[in-house]
Amino acid sequence: MKLYSYFRSSAAYRVRIALNLKGLDYATQAVHLVKNEQQQAEYSVLNPSQLVPTLIDEEQSLLQSLSILEYLEERYPATALLPKNLIERAKIRAFAQAIACDIHPLNNLRVLKYLQDELSLTNEQKSQWYQHWILEGFKSLEVQLQRSNGQFCFGNSATIADCCLIPQVYNAKRFKVDLSPSPKIESIYQHCLTIPAFLHAAPEQQPDWE
Amino acid sequence: MKLYSYFRSSAAYRVRIALNLKGLDYATQAVHLVKNEQQQAEYSVLNPSQLVPTLIDEEQSLLQSLSILEYLEERYPATALLPKNLIERAKIRAFAQAIACDIHPLNNLRVLKYLQDELSLTNEQKSQWYQHWILEGFKSLEVQLQRSNGQFCFGNSATIADCCLIPQVYNAKRFKVDLSPSPKIESIYQHCLTIPAFLHAAPEQQPDWE
Repeated sequence: MKLYSYFRSSAAYRVRIALNLKGLDYATQAVHLVKNEQQQAEYSVLNPSQLVPTLIDEEQSLLQSLSILEYLEERYPATALLPKNLIERAKIRAFAQAIACDIHPLNNLRVLKYLQDELSLTNEQKSQWYQHWILEGFKSLEVQLQRSNGQFCFGNSATIADCCLIPQVYNAKRFKVDLSPSPKIESIYQHCLTIPAFLHAAPEQQPDWE
Repeated sequence: MKLYSYFRSSAAYRVRIALNLKGLDYATQAVHLVKNEQQQAEYSVLNPSQLVPTLIDEEQSLLQSLSILEYLEERYPATALLPKNLIERAKIRAFAQAIACDIHPLNNLRVLKYLQDELSLTNEQKSQWYQHWILEGFKSLEVQLQRSNGQFCFGNSATIADCCLIPQVYNAKRFKVDLSPSPKIESIYQHCLTIPAFLHAAPEQQPDWE
């Protein structure tokens, strides 16, 4: 398998965690988002959205991090990242999507670029925008975790919820978001940092890290 | 089943289409987003993200439209909205997520409200923002559909891709986005408009339509 990745992309980071948790070997192909390598013709053929990640498996080009997580779960079921119970699966997917649909899309590089280049936002305004959507989103995630008493988001094994949460917390910390209103999130983050599958997926561990 | 819905919410519209395609009966409970009913305490208990839709099934509160579509597919498999082949499933989910993660989150009500109230954008700037993300997104969707020769996004039966595409096109048309660069999208939209499951899910057909 080959993963088109950018060290700082939290969508690629989700897939790296899942591949590691499942013990799947893969090669990393870096796509430098700040240098706009995602817009090059060769990459656009693989990924018409010109985003990362793209996973190549069995010569197929697979897009969108959550779709890739579902694919990995169906194709390589060992070390399951979703339980069997349908209601639990729905709650875990909803948690993952609250990150992937409600927080991350508002704060990724292309949006911050638009705010700066097209709308001439100041750094202060961009930072407020960034923090606003994380704080709004984390408030809901923290409530969704209230009934969780395990070491991970849902129980004592990692799920796709953790694959999505850890990169989002990493980003929040990078932008100095105050996580004191989110003690459950913080404690799950700290726990995951002790696990090799998560550690090896971190931006600092990537071959393209700068 | 009970669906907490808002007639104009395209996330709720996705779920309404899926419920109709699967022939599942449900009651609609309107949540008026412009009147901020989603922020009322009673609703926040069901949906801590204070968004629609929420689906109640077997006394469980299910959040996030794509998670609800996956739940419906697993719990009520008749009239499948995903094929069996793993690569096809991945491509269909990626298409749905390109809408749910890359287009819709940037253009929903709470974001347009932030652009207006916090950043004092003019109507012209808001409209440019709106059109920008739809046009960017549709460019990629149109490419993803190039190999598709069926009446729907992927073949000749509806999938979760169509459940997501039709509400997004409805929104684009409402905001007068030029769809001439997207002939495949337009033709699939026109086909779906002839099908009762899609028609009955439209905003105009909802009990809370204004």
